[in-house]
Amino acid sequence: MERLIEGFDHFRRHMTAEQRDLFARLASGQTPHTMFITCADSRVMPEMIFGAQPGELFVYRNVGNIVPPYAQHVSGVVAAIEYAVTALKMKHIVICGHSDCGAMKALQNPAALKGKPSVEQWLKHADVARYVVAENRPTIQGEEGLRYLTEENVVGQLEHLRTLPAVAAAMANGSLRIHGWIYDIAKTEITAFDPAEGRFRPLLSGDGNVPDATPHARFSTPAPVASAA
Amino acid sequence: MERLIEGFDHFRRHMTAEQRDLFARLASGQTPHTMFITCADSRVMPEMIFGAQPGELFVYRNVGNIVPPYAQHVSGVVAAIEYAVTALKMKHIVICGHSDCGAMKALQNPAALKGKPSVEQWLKHADVARYVVAENRPTIQGEEGLRYLTEENVVGQLEHLRTLPAVAAAMANGSLRIHGWIYDIAKTEITAFDPAEGRFRPLLSGDGNVPDATPHARFSTPAPVASAA
Amino acid sequence: MERLIEGFDHFRRHMTAEQRDLFARLASGQTPHTMFITCADSRVMPEMIFGAQPGELFVYRNVGNIVPPYAQHVSGVVAAIEYAVTALKMKHIVICGHSDCGAMKALQNPAALKGKPSVEQWLKHADVARYVVAENRPTIQGEEGLRYLTEENVVGQLEHLRTLPAVAAAMANGSLRIHGWIYDIAKTEITAFDPAEGRFRPLLSGDGNVPDATPHARFSTPAPVASAA
Amino acid sequence: MERLIEGFDHFRRHMTAEQRDLFARLASGQTPHTMFITCADSRVMPEMIFGAQPGELFVYRNVGNIVPPYAQHVSGVVAAIEYAVTALKMKHIVICGHSDCGAMKALQNPAALKGKPSVEQWLKHADVARYVVAENRPTIQGEEGLRYLTEENVVGQLEHLRTLPAVAAAMANGSLRIHGWIYDIAKTEITAFDPAEGRFRPLLSGDGNVPDATPHARFSTPAPVASAA
Amino acid sequence: MERLIEGFDHFRRHMTAEQRDLFARLASGQTPHTMFITCADSRVMPEMIFGAQPGELFVYRNVGNIVPPYAQHVSGVVAAIEYAVTALKMKHIVICGHSDCGAMKALQNPAALKGKPSVEQWLKHADVARYVVAENRPTIQGEEGLRYLTEENVVGQLEHLRTLPAVAAAMANGSLRIHGWIYDIAKTEITAFDPAEGRFRPLLSGDGNVPDATPHARFSTPAPVASAA
Amino acid sequence: MERLIEGFDHFRRHMTAEQRDLFARLASGQTPHTMFITCADSRVMPEMIFGAQPGELFVYRNVGNIVPPYAQHVSGVVAAIEYAVTALKMKHIVICGHSDCGAMKALQNPAALKGKPSVEQWLKHADVARYVVAENRPTIQGEEGLRYLTEENVVGQLEHLRTLPAVAAAMANGSLRIHGWIYDIAKTEITAFDPAEGRFRPLLSGDGNVPDATPHARFSTPAPVASAA
Ligand SMILES: [Zn+2]
Ligand SMILES: [Zn+2]
Ligand SMILES: [Zn+2]
Ligand SMILES: [Zn+2]
Ligand SMILES: [Zn+2]
Ligand SMILES: [Zn+2]
Repeated sequence: MERLIEGFDHFRRHMTAEQRDLFARLASGQTPHTMFITCADSRVMPEMIFGAQPGELFVYRNVGNIVPPYAQHVSGVVAAIEYAVTALKMKHIVICGHSDCGAMKALQNPAALKGKPSVEQWLKHADVARYVVAENRPTIQGEEGLRYLTEENVVGQLEHLRTLPAVAAAMANGSLRIHGWIYDIAKTEITAFDPAEGRFRPLLSGDGNVPDATPHARFSTPAPVASAA
Repeated sequence: MERLIEGFDHFRRHMTAEQRDLFARLASGQTPHTMFITCADSRVMPEMIFGAQPGELFVYRNVGNIVPPYAQHVSGVVAAIEYAVTALKMKHIVICGHSDCGAMKALQNPAALKGKPSVEQWLKHADVARYVVAENRPTIQGEEGLRYLTEENVVGQLEHLRTLPAVAAAMANGSLRIHGWIYDIAKTEITAFDPAEGRFRPLLSGDGNVPDATPHARFSTPAPVASAA
Repeated sequence: MERLIEGFDHFRRHMTAEQRDLFARLASGQTPHTMFITCADSRVMPEMIFGAQPGELFVYRNVGNIVPPYAQHVSGVVAAIEYAVTALKMKHIVICGHSDCGAMKALQNPAALKGKPSVEQWLKHADVARYVVAENRPTIQGEEGLRYLTEENVVGQLEHLRTLPAVAAAMANGSLRIHGWIYDIAKTEITAFDPAEGRFRPLLSGDGNVPDATPHARFSTPAPVASAA
Repeated sequence: MERLIEGFDHFRRHMTAEQRDLFARLASGQTPHTMFITCADSRVMPEMIFGAQPGELFVYRNVGNIVPPYAQHVSGVVAAIEYAVTALKMKHIVICGHSDCGAMKALQNPAALKGKPSVEQWLKHADVARYVVAENRPTIQGEEGLRYLTEENVVGQLEHLRTLPAVAAAMANGSLRIHGWIYDIAKTEITAFDPAEGRFRPLLSGDGNVPDATPHARFSTPAPVASAA
Repeated sequence: MERLIEGFDHFRRHMTAEQRDLFARLASGQTPHTMFITCADSRVMPEMIFGAQPGELFVYRNVGNIVPPYAQHVSGVVAAIEYAVTALKMKHIVICGHSDCGAMKALQNPAALKGKPSVEQWLKHADVARYVVAENRPTIQGEEGLRYLTEENVVGQLEHLRTLPAVAAAMANGSLRIHGWIYDIAKTEITAFDPAEGRFRPLLSGDGNVPDATPHARFSTPAPVASAA
Repeated sequence: MERLIEGFDHFRRHMTAEQRDLFARLASGQTPHTMFITCADSRVMPEMIFGAQPGELFVYRNVGNIVPPYAQHVSGVVAAIEYAVTALKMKHIVICGHSDCGAMKALQNPAALKGKPSVEQWLKHADVARYVVAENRPTIQGEEGLRYLTEENVVGQLEHLRTLPAVAAAMANGSLRIHGWIYDIAKTEITAFDPAEGRFRPLLSGDGNVPDATPHARFSTPAPVASAA
């Protein structure tokens, strides 16, 4: 706690004029371009690794970077995405898992959930990863099994994301794009899900061909009369 | 999206040896000391303003820095706090609101929620702020009303936090402390709730007397035999 | 009621020896190949229009051929699909909407739901159709609007279906296929959703090329040793 | 799947002029007289065994012909019944169980539910059958036990049905009647619950005395003008 | 508050030896014969009007003497009845409404619920009364309408009570009996629901013929070997 | 049952003129000063031990004197408290546990809950007591353990009570006070929770210093102009 307070004191004393200006400008509104959904894990620092400035990323974090589907009982994630898409007009939503994730390890080893009934209930939203791996890679354990779970969890959460009406409506005309990524802490690498190939590929491929998990648009955007809205 | 990808590319190219070492060390575990619960707002960047290193803060972010109470239906926040307290043995939990918060503005002006049913349902967890201000400061509007709502929301979420069994159990012997803060974006200032005075006071008071919202411990910690647990 | 009783009496008296044999054989088990999810509407009679025999179709019917997604609160549909996939080893799941559907008309004209709070709450699971059409075809009303809603509802329910862990696990290796159809009562025609083209095409195209809504398999089926399971 | 498509092709080619007329007439509306709630089991084909025409039966099917009671969380069945009674002005509701039902077998042998958590949760709505039989026929197993469970499940679902406000309101003046039946697949026989005798009796008794599970009406139908009801 | 404390002080000083003995005997267990479910209203004092001694009545009180049906979400009433029937082996359950009930008045005049969203949501469990009266006595207002609502609420809660598995199991063999009463505060009179007549009759009829709302038992009690349990 | 009916008959015959007058006056309204929340246990008779008159106590009783927190799913207790505070303008709310409570014994010995799934689910709202005692007094069993559980349950329910918006709003200006008591059946004694000392103290201390569990008011009551509302 002292570290935080000292850190904040230090930050205030050493703010640049530029930072002061930025915060003053931001004081009355935000216009982020991307919603970033990731794990609460202390080793995942999205703003740092992307060099994002204040005002750029609308950041949702929970245990396991989970997006419950759209159901009668509203979760905080669903509410946040609705807000991001309808009020903030987000252009992109990224769901980003990571290596060595405690939530994924708990999926692999349910005994770790003893005495943690709320976590166990929450991870029901990651059942899909558990089922897909158990059915299709039943003999794979350890590191490789954990990687499969982490990947299938991102794939499954993308499916959940597609059930949100506001997301479906915006994706149907291409105005919103969704992405499923995994951040490897040790290697400082990111892979992205490519539905065409059905696998994760490096985000930085060098060829500018960035994988994207958005389904095909079924509607062209509202007729482009003479304006460029 | 391109900005993020370029940012990540830049980050990777310019990592220091120190950073590489840190990430390598962190690759197989985290030992954060503080759980930080704040808003998804793009202008709130906890790691930046506290100068926190990777591995220090377990960060939960949602719309309105809300903690639903412990009920039959488990929320992601409740699961995350259970994990933070029982698995990660967190010493501190901070609930941090902020100025110009879209969620608080929506409490003040419910018309803004039209077409956002999930946000409206989610903000039921902030009803307490709305009720307290409507009952006790019915004539106050605008900026001042927003400040009251923001403060009362933090106070109310602290109350919700106290209903979590794992939190109550750890607070009862003093091993966990809870804090309610508000970050002012324009002024780069933080105030903290002081239950003894029933109001928010500056975090950086200069006298080292930091407000703390933890109720009195009712149990001494397990008898301190001869060990230094 | 008398008609039903007389009908049953008539059916019993005129059963063929073949039918008797069939029922005797079926008395201790079912092995349907397809789960058919359709509306409770009295004009939709799947067994009749497909000439299905007893024992062929596992038939789920509700208002609006809706499949709630996989969430903490289990619906009857989710339970039935889990049973169909894990216990009955279904090879296909069809979600079949229909023309002139009362549920779709209610989406189009919410005033019709006055005094029907349970139907209104149930149709929350069809919000996705409402949102997609409102966002992308805001000016289209009447017959054409109803057709869009009916199509988008089937597309949305297919998305919900994909969130079921047992479904995702079986689709991931190609052992289960899913289909989205619409039955036109007046024309006795069926169209099927083709995700590649993003539109509904006639089921009976004559070229044997039947549209299929299953996502690409990501896992090859368990190694095909020497057997033909 | 091919069988279905061929079956539909065959049906279209061989439609009679009468059928074409009927479908044309039905294209813009339905006026069914009876809501029929039965199991999704592939061997139960209500339209076939009652010789019902398109437009006659509003058919709800789920696993175990279950009707959850009227509670805060609305199920698809409750919504469908509300629609049937208030919009379609149904005169009769039949809940129809059947012999060799997989859901009833699962009640008898809970071990069969391993790996089927959604089915297990769904069958909570059939707890009443399990409790009644366990308490009153604890030593009866096998076929006879299954028959008791099947009967008590129908009795219990009739009780649930009575909790729906729209059903209670219509039954209270006799304008809606409810029925609990069991269909024996092997014998092609139906028995109906007779609350006066507290047991199931053959539907086709020959004496025209058909059992009916509706409670006594407490209100005469809307007051006949000049009287002082 | 002072009145309560003084009242308690007075009670302690004036306890009789008999009362002291009774409380000493009761200190380690209760064996009530009847569960009494009534309204929280301050004018309803069941122990007083029945002259019940400590240890006789297991008393559940809430707003509107409501019994939610048995559903996935467990209410406190359902839990209490389960406890009463399975642990305390209750012989009778009484649901007792009363005249001038605030909850019933709110059913009659929904405007009274403005600003009371939780009460409004809770009274959904009394929808049945509202529907039955609206459908069958639409023109009756005022006192008489309130009486109808109060009666139909008791009838509806009896229906809910019948959905509890433990209740159904015990009623099925006659070991538990259920009763629906209404207490008139001004007249100090009680009427009881008689399902055979479909109306409420005076509890104290003088002829010893007490109305009882229990459905016919379908199972004889476990064979009465040689003991008299 | 006969005892109740005879008791009521006796009560009616022996009513005093004063009682008749009181009931007549109360026939059209109640103005209780205190909401009393206690266990359904047959040995707890609040009106008797406080010598309360009809019209004084608004009495809520359930298993374990539990107050679920304010969440999306409304419980009967939450609705009742909302009614008590906003409609009846209650000045005090007392949560009163008691010795030898079956619910607390079940917390101590979960095996007692076998076959009582609804009670088990209900007691989730008392998890906090279980956790606090397990964490802080892990080695204490029997009578003393039961006393700790009973006390911590009252403390935990007070925390739940604080989450109700209407309660928080009224406590914030001191117009509502809350109290946590425990009634010892054998000793006819009451202890009250004193948050300042973090322990339960005798209610009748003789010095007029009655413990009170209300948090400090943060708002002065609406400015006391010249009137005495
Ligand atoms: Zn993680
Ligand atoms: Zn905010
Ligand atoms: Zn339909
Ligand atoms: Zn079946
Ligand atoms: Zn009342
Ligand atoms: Zn108790």
